[in-house]
Amino acid sequence: MLSKQVTKIVQNLEKKKFREKYNLFKIEGTKLVGELLQSHLKIRYIIAFSQWIKSNGPHLSDISILEASPQEMHAISNFQSLPEVIALAEIPVYHYSQEKVSTTLALALNGIQDPGNLGTILRVADWFGIRHILCDRDCANVYNPKCIQASMGAIFRVHPYYLELSQAIQKLKSYDYPIFGTFLDGENIYTTTLSTRGLIIMGNEGKGISPELVPLTNIRLTIPGFATTEKATESLNVGVATGIILSEFKRRIY
Amino acid sequence: MLSKQVTKIVQNLEKKKFREKYNLFKIEGTKLVGELLQSHLKIRYIIAFSQWIKSNGPHLSDISILEASPQEMHAISNFQSLPEVIALAEIPVYHYSQEKVSTTLALALNGIQDPGNLGTILRVADWFGIRHILCDRDCANVYNPKCIQASMGAIFRVHPYYLELSQAIQKLKSYDYPIFGTFLDGENIYTTTLSTRGLIIMGNEGKGISPELVPLTNIRLTIPGFATTEKATESLNVGVATGIILSEFKRRIY
Repeated sequence: MLSKQVTKIVQNLEKKKFREKYNLFKIEGTKLVGELLQSHLKIRYIIAFSQWIKSNGPHLSDISILEASPQEMHAISNFQSLPEVIALAEIPVYHYSQEKVSTTLALALNGIQDPGNLGTILRVADWFGIRHILCDRDCANVYNPKCIQASMGAIFRVHPYYLELSQAIQKLKSYDYPIFGTFLDGENIYTTTLSTRGLIIMGNEGKGISPELVPLTNIRLTIPGFATTEKATESLNVGVATGIILSEFKRRIY
Repeated sequence: MLSKQVTKIVQNLEKKKFREKYNLFKIEGTKLVGELLQSHLKIRYIIAFSQWIKSNGPHLSDISILEASPQEMHAISNFQSLPEVIALAEIPVYHYSQEKVSTTLALALNGIQDPGNLGTILRVADWFGIRHILCDRDCANVYNPKCIQASMGAIFRVHPYYLELSQAIQKLKSYDYPIFGTFLDGENIYTTTLSTRGLIIMGNEGKGISPELVPLTNIRLTIPGFATTEKATESLNVGVATGIILSEFKRRIY
């Protein structure tokens, strides 16, 4: 049985304020919790149906396991059909090192608002082997349950850092680190020389890259449209754009 | 003022059954309605705040315009912050012609469940100049309000057809039309010969391409992952995958 206190804590984890207070975030569902168990993250609590506990509990030491009834699960789940298990994990701390980042291809997220888009971006970053994700404080929070869900487990592998982007970029530039920005009127990405290291800035869904970051970019990229009629979609979804751009950087090795 | 009957009809348009009954679908917000007004679609009703009507009403003939109060708008809107305008447009009819499709690069959507993913796919299709979208009956409905919203107006330009995919593909094959399928274990898309015409099948979010369609594909494609660790994201979001694949087909002209 779940105490009222535990129920309240889990419900509060929807909000960033409480995630930071408790230093915990919530992971729902058999598949994602399975990936969590294989990650380096520290799990504090598992709340599950008795069946899940019977199959998985014996392998789990050091974790408090609480059994929940369907009604109790309903009170703490965001899912339409109830998950068998919910885990609460500690928010990991990744040490930001500009030296380390400057040897890799990394992403900078500038005011990505929608947690679903953010999760999709983490998922595609993980697919293309991007580890370091620099986020400014206008970005949605990566431990938002909608982001966790959309990330499909990528959140357990990529390293997000929240920092002052303009400062971080200025420091990275001293390493001769190329800064790529995505614009509607940049150079054709298909014909531009790309590199295996560098920072790719993805801008806000509606407003694009913020004015203070624009002058910090060395290379302005664009994904050209191929519409045959005058009227066409004005832009791509930021998750899709990130996918196309990372694909284009990575494919050049072939 | 909105009558109870109009309010009820608009609310019912959330459901496919009623969209088909009334042959109408709902478009919310100044930006999307603006795109709708520039499209070929027939608008039956506009429901708006007085201010929107003052600025736009005089240019609109043949459309019934109804003024709504904030409270009335709240009852029929899906938005968190109220839209200034909601339009009800007739569901357009596109005549499916296998001859026409067989000269183009087209998409086949096989059981895409999430209306947001579906809308994202339409948006990316529009960006890359793909007009013909073949959907099977397991796909979400393109006139679902969440799909309309995610499509960002692409729904007014692409031509979706709901049909028996396996039959349609079999007929298309008689035009020597290449059928591309996306799989986790296909050929590397970056090194495969692609073509300027052909059908690209995108499968269901969880299950991929359905067993009955698998034998109909000529070319099995995959987007290779670049993860540096063993554990990594198992797949890409279907909207992102569609974006990367269409980008790859279209970039070859450069």
